[in-house]
Amino acid sequence: MKKRLIQAALGEIPADLLLKNGQIVDVFTGTVFPADVAVIDGRIACVGHCGEARETVDLEGRFVSPGLINAHCHVESSMAVPAVYCAEELRWGVTTLITDPHEIANVAGLPGIRYMLDASESLPINYYVQLPSCVPATPFEHAGCVLGADELAGLAGHPRVLGLGEMMNAPGVISCDPEVMRKLDLFEGRIIDGHAPQAHGCWLQAYAAAGICTDHESISYGEAREKLRAGIAVLIREGSATHNLEAILSGVLAEELATDRLAFCTDDKHLADIRREGTIRWCIRKAIALGMNPVTAISLATINPARIYRLPHLGAVAPGYQADLVIFDDLASLNVMGVYHKGKRVTADEAAACNETTAGAGIGSSVRLAPFTAEALAPVLDPERRYPVIELLPHEIATEKDWCTGEEAEQALLRGELCRIAVLERHHATGHIGCGLLRGYGLKDGAAATTVAHDSHNLIVVGTNPHDMAAAVQELARVQGGYTLVRGGQVMDTLPLPVGGLMSSLSADELNARLEKMIAQARAMGVSESNDPFITLSFMALPVIPKMRITDMGMFDAENFVFCE
Amino acid sequence: MKKRLIQAALGEIPADLLLKNGQIVDVFTGTVFPADVAVIDGRIACVGHCGEARETVDLEGRFVSPGLINAHCHVESSMAVPAVYCAEELRWGVTTLITDPHEIANVAGLPGIRYMLDASESLPINYYVQLPSCVPATPFEHAGCVLGADELAGLAGHPRVLGLGEMMNAPGVISCDPEVMRKLDLFEGRIIDGHAPQAHGCWLQAYAAAGICTDHESISYGEAREKLRAGIAVLIREGSATHNLEAILSGVLAEELATDRLAFCTDDKHLADIRREGTIRWCIRKAIALGMNPVTAISLATINPARIYRLPHLGAVAPGYQADLVIFDDLASLNVMGVYHKGKRVTADEAAACNETTAGAGIGSSVRLAPFTAEALAPVLDPERRYPVIELLPHEIATEKDWCTGEEAEQALLRGELCRIAVLERHHATGHIGCGLLRGYGLKDGAAATTVAHDSHNLIVVGTNPHDMAAAVQELARVQGGYTLVRGGQVMDTLPLPVGGLMSSLSADELNARLEKMIAQARAMGVSESNDPFITLSFMALPVIPKMRITDMGMFDAENFVFCE
Repeated sequence: MKKRLIQAALGEIPADLLLKNGQIVDVFTGTVFPADVAVIDGRIACVGHCGEARETVDLEGRFVSPGLINAHCHVESSMAVPAVYCAEELRWGVTTLITDPHEIANVAGLPGIRYMLDASESLPINYYVQLPSCVPATPFEHAGCVLGADELAGLAGHPRVLGLGEMMNAPGVISCDPEVMRKLDLFEGRIIDGHAPQAHGCWLQAYAAAGICTDHESISYGEAREKLRAGIAVLIREGSATHNLEAILSGVLAEELATDRLAFCTDDKHLADIRREGTIRWCIRKAIALGMNPVTAISLATINPARIYRLPHLGAVAPGYQADLVIFDDLASLNVMGVYHKGKRVTADEAAACNETTAGAGIGSSVRLAPFTAEALAPVLDPERRYPVIELLPHEIATEKDWCTGEEAEQALLRGELCRIAVLERHHATGHIGCGLLRGYGLKDGAAATTVAHDSHNLIVVGTNPHDMAAAVQELARVQGGYTLVRGGQVMDTLPLPVGGLMSSLSADELNARLEKMIAQARAMGVSESNDPFITLSFMALPVIPKMRITDMGMFDAENFVFCE
Repeated sequence: MKKRLIQAALGEIPADLLLKNGQIVDVFTGTVFPADVAVIDGRIACVGHCGEARETVDLEGRFVSPGLINAHCHVESSMAVPAVYCAEELRWGVTTLITDPHEIANVAGLPGIRYMLDASESLPINYYVQLPSCVPATPFEHAGCVLGADELAGLAGHPRVLGLGEMMNAPGVISCDPEVMRKLDLFEGRIIDGHAPQAHGCWLQAYAAAGICTDHESISYGEAREKLRAGIAVLIREGSATHNLEAILSGVLAEELATDRLAFCTDDKHLADIRREGTIRWCIRKAIALGMNPVTAISLATINPARIYRLPHLGAVAPGYQADLVIFDDLASLNVMGVYHKGKRVTADEAAACNETTAGAGIGSSVRLAPFTAEALAPVLDPERRYPVIELLPHEIATEKDWCTGEEAEQALLRGELCRIAVLERHHATGHIGCGLLRGYGLKDGAAATTVAHDSHNLIVVGTNPHDMAAAVQELARVQGGYTLVRGGQVMDTLPLPVGGLMSSLSADELNARLEKMIAQARAMGVSESNDPFITLSFMALPVIPKMRITDMGMFDAENFVFCE
C-alpha cells in the first residue's frame, strides 16, 4: 500500500481520483494555495501537480478542506440511529465523529455501546467512541446498569475506542474515589475527556493533574483560558441548547491567544438544527464572522481535534493522510459542494441508506415496568403537609424550587397551574416510582410521557390526572419507549423510540415531521411555548442541574444534593 | 502517584518543591501569567496559588519556561561522551534531547547504539533515540557494520527509542527499495525522521507519503514552507556549521505562517559553541530578535517538538506534566537562572559527574587496521597520467574538483600547494585504502589524521610525505582513535578519542582546551586559517556532498556519483 502511494505520488501508476484546480486549505501553514489532489487506496498521494487518475474532477477553483471533525457528541440525543445521524453530519462536511454513547450505556450497558459500534461499523464516516465513564451518572437514581472499570476494560481495546468519556464525577476525581481512579488508570496515557463546568483554581489543577485531557463545558472566555492554561484542550460547544462559541472566541481573538488547543463540538444537537445549518461547519462560519482567519477556523475543526485525539491520519490535506475531504464553494458561506470519505464521494442519502434496521441484541426491549396503579403516579395529598414543587423557567434547563401545601397544590391543579409528575424506574421492573409536582409546563388536560430522561432514562410522565398518566405509561411500555401524548384515556400521538427507548430508525425527514406534529399537538393541549414539550421533560430527572429535580427515588433538591423528604 | 499529585494540587499534602512568584511561560495560550508552581514526585501538581511544600524557592518574578527540547542532534559530533555533552546542554536549559546515534552506529553497530543508551540511562536529562536508518550511509565506502531492518528490530522496543532516524536514503524511499520499505514498515505509526535537502514537487510528495514525519535540512523559507505543506514538521537547524533559522523564520514571520509544526534543533554543534551560547536557547533568542513573540519562540523549543515526537508528558508548565523547567531572567536575554529535571535542580557540573568512564563492550577498541606500508598511503605518481584533486573551498564543506598530471602534482607537492590524502578502512582490517590529492589544506610539513570521518568513520590521513602519514596512522592505531599531528616522524600532539574513535571522556573544559591547543599546533604547521584543521578533514570522506571526495575505495566524483577511476 505504501508502495502504491509512493508510485501514485510520482505519477508512475494512475491514482484512483484526481481533484484538479483546487484551492488547498493548508492547516499546517494556515494558508491557502492552488493545487491538485491525487488519491489512491483511500489516502492522499500527492498535493501539487499530480499525474493521471482513473477519475478526474475539475474543482474550478473551489476550496479543498480536510473533512470536519465533531470532537464531542452524543448521537443518541438526536433520537436517530447512527446511520441517520451520520448522514446529517456528512451532509455538512463532517467526516469524523468522536462520540460518547453515554445515553445508551445508561439504558443497556456494554451491549448498548456495542450496538452503537456495530451500527456505525460500515458507515462512510470515522466513528470513534469514548467509553462512558459515569454510568450511572449519580447515586440518586436507578439506571439500566452500572459500568465499572472491569466492565469498561472489556471494550477498551476496541479499535475505534479512543479513551474514556467525559468524567462528570469530578468530585470523585478530586477525592480520589478508588473506582474512579481505577477507570482513570485503565485509560492512562490515552485520551480522557473531562466535564467540569466552572471548575477553577486548585480544584481545576487537581482535575487536570489526574490526567483529564479535554473539557467542553466552558461557557466564558475566562473559564476556557484557565482550562487551556491547565493543559486541558477546550472543545468549544455549539449545540441546540448551548452556544458557547461567541463568548470564548471573542476573548481568544481579542487577546490573540494561541488556538491550537481549541476544537469545535456539538455535545447535543438536534436533527432539525443540523439539517438547517450543519454542526462544525456552522462553528467555522461563526468563527470567521467573529474575525478569525478562515484557515485557522478550519484548523479548529480538523487538525486540532485530530491532534487532541491522537488521530495522526486525519485532519489535513497532505500526502499519506486519509482522503477525507470537503469541497467548499468559498471560505465565508462555506456551502458544501462535495464530501469525500477515504477518497470516495459520499452523499447523505447513501449514508442514511446504510441504516441498520435491526437493533442490537438486548437493545430493542428496554422498557420493563413493575405493575403499578394510577394512584401510585399521583398519590393523594395531605392538605396540611408542605410539598416540593419543580418550577420551570422559560427557555432554561435549570429550574426553580418552590414549596406549597397539599391544599394549595390541589387548587393549583384544578386551575391548571400545576401538573403531577412521576418518574418510573423502567429498566429492571423494580417498581421504584418518584412522584411530585411541576409548575409552568402548561398542560391543561391529559398527560405527556417520555423514556428519554437524562441520564438514567427512566420513564417520566406528567399529567393533569392519574388515569391519563397511567395510560401514557402503558402506551410507552407497549411501544417499548418513545414520546407519547394522552387525553381522556386516548392516545393522541406516539413517537416510538424502540432502540433503547432513545432512538428511532426512521429517516431524518420522517423523524423531524413526526416530532413537529407531536410538538404542535402538545401545544394544542396547552404546553407552554416557552419550553420544548419533550426536551424540557427529559431534563426533569437530571439531578446534577439546579435547583429542583425528580428521580425514580423521589423529589430531589439539586442545590443541596439531598432528597426532599 | 496520581493520588499524591491530586492531593498536592489541592494542598492536602505538602509538595516536594514550590517555586513561588514566577511568571509562567504558557505555551498553550501563548501568554505569560503570574503563578506559583508546586511539584511532587517529579511532576507538576499545581500552577496557581499552591499549598505548602518541603522546599520553597522565591523566583522574584523570574520566568518559568518548560525545559527546552533539542529536536535533533548527533551527540557523537561533539566528541564528548553523553554525560559531558548533556551537561553542556543542561547548562543552557535543554532538558530533552532527541538524538540519532548515527555516527557510533557506523563504527560499532547495535552495541554502539546500546552504549549511547546505557551511558545516558541515568543522566538528569530526557535522552531519546531515533534509530539510525542508513548504516552504512552509502554503498561507496566500508563502514563498521550494516544495520538492516532485522537488526533495528532488536532495539525498536527500547523505552527511549521513539522511531527511525533521518532517512537519508531518499532515492531508496522513492524507488521503494525493499530493505528501505522494511525499515519504514518496522516503524509504521511511529516517528520517522527525514533528511531531504532541496526535495520538492512530486518527489517530496512521494517522500512524505512514505510516512516521513520531520526534516531538518531546509535552508530557505520556500523549502521549509513546501515541506510543511507536505505535512512534514520542519526542524529549524542552528548548528556550528549550519545556520538556517534566520532564512526560514524571516519568511514565516513575514507571511504570518502557523508555527506549530516548527521546532528547533542543532544537528551538529561543537562543545565550545554550546558553552558560549547554548543550543536551543540560542535559537529562541534569535527568533525573538527577528520579531517573533517570545512565548511562540519558546513553543518552538518545547511543546512543538514534544507534540511532533509524541511526548505528551513534556513541553509545558501545567499539572501532570513532568517537572522539567528552566528559569529565565527575562524573555530577551534568556539568561538561565536555574534548570529543573523531574523537579530536581540540576547543574551542569552534577550532570557531567555522571560521566561513565567505562565505555560499553566493543566500543573501546575500534581501530583495526590491516598491515600497510608508507608507500601505500602515497603511491608513486605516473608523470603522464591525470589524477583527480579535491580542492577545498574557504569556510565551506563543499569542495571543488580538479585534475592534474602526475608531474604537475609532484611539483605542487614540493611547493606545498598540494598534500597527499588517504583513507584507510579501519573497522575490519580489510586493508582497503583510497589515495588521492588535496589542495588548499595548507599543511607545509608533516601529517594530520583523524578517525572522525563522516559517515563511515574510517581513518583519514593527510600529509606532505609518506613517513609522517604512516606515523600518524600508527599513532591513531595506538590510541585507538582520535586526532593526531606528526612532523619529522615525531608525534606533535594527539587527542585520543577512545570511544569508537569518535568520543572522549574528558571534561568539556579539558576537551576544549586540548582541541584549541591542537588547532594552534596545526596552524603552526601551516594549515590554512580558512578551514578547521580536523573538522574539514572529517568531511573529506562523505561521498554525498559535492563535488569531490575520497573514501577507502578511492577518489569519488560526488557530483556524478562515480569513482574517478
